[in-house]
Amino acid sequence: MSSPRTEIVYGLHAVRVLLQRYPERVLRIALQPGRSDARAAQIEQLALAAGRTLERAPASRLLASLGDVAHQGVAAEILPLPAWREQELLEALGQTQDPLLLALDGVQDPHNLGACLRTADACGVLAVIVPRDRAAQLNATARKVATGAAETTPVVTVTNLARTLALLKDAGLWIVGADADAPQAAAAVDLTGPRVLVLGAEGAGLRALTRRHCDWLARLPSGGVVESLNVSVAAGMLLYEALRQRATQTSAPPRNAPPRK
Amino acid sequence: MSSPRTEIVYGLHAVRVLLQRYPERVLRIALQPGRSDARAAQIEQLALAAGRTLERAPASRLLASLGDVAHQGVAAEILPLPAWREQELLEALGQTQDPLLLALDGVQDPHNLGACLRTADACGVLAVIVPRDRAAQLNATARKVATGAAETTPVVTVTNLARTLALLKDAGLWIVGADADAPQAAAAVDLTGPRVLVLGAEGAGLRALTRRHCDWLARLPSGGVVESLNVSVAAGMLLYEALRQRATQTSAPPRNAPPRK
Repeated sequence: MSSPRTEIVYGLHAVRVLLQRYPERVLRIALQPGRSDARAAQIEQLALAAGRTLERAPASRLLASLGDVAHQGVAAEILPLPAWREQELLEALGQTQDPLLLALDGVQDPHNLGACLRTADACGVLAVIVPRDRAAQLNATARKVATGAAETTPVVTVTNLARTLALLKDAGLWIVGADADAPQAAAAVDLTGPRVLVLGAEGAGLRALTRRHCDWLARLPSGGVVESLNVSVAAGMLLYEALRQRATQTSAPPRNAPPRK
Repeated sequence: MSSPRTEIVYGLHAVRVLLQRYPERVLRIALQPGRSDARAAQIEQLALAAGRTLERAPASRLLASLGDVAHQGVAAEILPLPAWREQELLEALGQTQDPLLLALDGVQDPHNLGACLRTADACGVLAVIVPRDRAAQLNATARKVATGAAETTPVVTVTNLARTLALLKDAGLWIVGADADAPQAAAAVDLTGPRVLVLGAEGAGLRALTRRHCDWLARLPSGGVVESLNVSVAAGMLLYEALRQRATQTSAPPRNAPPRK
């Protein structure tokens, strides 16, 4: 039997969050002997409570293996977050109040996938959906750019994005696509309920088939010499708007149901 | 006398915008002979109207020099946008209704500077302010990531950011810093008038001296394993919020003046 693949996360904040949320996935922690402040002490306590190995070796191989990154003297070897299939996604939807999903329609640059994961993580996105073909997958580059977010926000790789969007509609989610030419600004689209936010590929935008599955199209700023926003910035703006609306539901965005086909 | 340095921009949208806004800066345009659609025709007309040279050579050296980028068969050689000093910035402020500035406090990665410029361009930012020391400057990498935005959005390099912020306060602008621990969400801060939005460095956030010059601190989403948003995503969210408020001034954000020191 081969041992399972593991991932390394580093930094006081990331290691703390992983110990708090997923102690069972943390295999071992390396902490630089010099660190004896309150944040390091908290990590020691969490590791102790979870019964995890804590290494204080001065020349920890785990820390040395990271190279030139801002690890703050702490790293953890963990079991990776398992990839989700549609089945796991649909099950998780049933257990989540007003789930917020992000779908990337043919984003090809793993840096952009990693950047979107990092933002999705900060915004409490349940999962990020990517097509299997002609799209960046969760490789080492994407994980590095995600700086730990790949370990808390599941990626769902799907064979047919349009079919998955149809499934999610049946599950009660509304599909909102970002589009530079949409008649409605993002702020005019109701993002407070169960929603899938769909971002198109760099340059090309949403594919025609994906667009047809959108209940709403949401416009983002595009007044410059550059034709489009970077996809991770566009995702950040749309997620920001969703969280803003959710935090201030008194300001009543339009709540009429979208025309269903 | 040496000839001035020139820059190359490419893509139908970017070349069209440059011909419309700054025809005097466009030296020559290369257009692939295969292109005869409406968007290419518009570029031809604009070039003709501005009296600019249009090259239709099949093997244009200008296009060939670009390498593997999505140039859409069009490129232009232009005079670069001159860097601004504080003096030019202060003059431009006087000619702009509710100017919106972006200041980057020690952002060291030229990719992040380029990404911020691209977003600033899309959001109609008047200029981007960066400190001279310990911060990324507008080099070739930043220009490439900005995909043309460095040719429309001026960068102001300043010796002392805190001093510049004080000058801008005196000129009637309010200073708003992004901060993960701010008590007020960005949506609760009035971003509709003359404003400088300040983003801190990757990881470190705003420096103490910069923070002291902020009239308001604005909180952005930060609920994940990753300690902070990427700076260009954070800039995108804060600029999005400013534009949202400006588009819907009826929703009346708090308009009380900040406590001035």
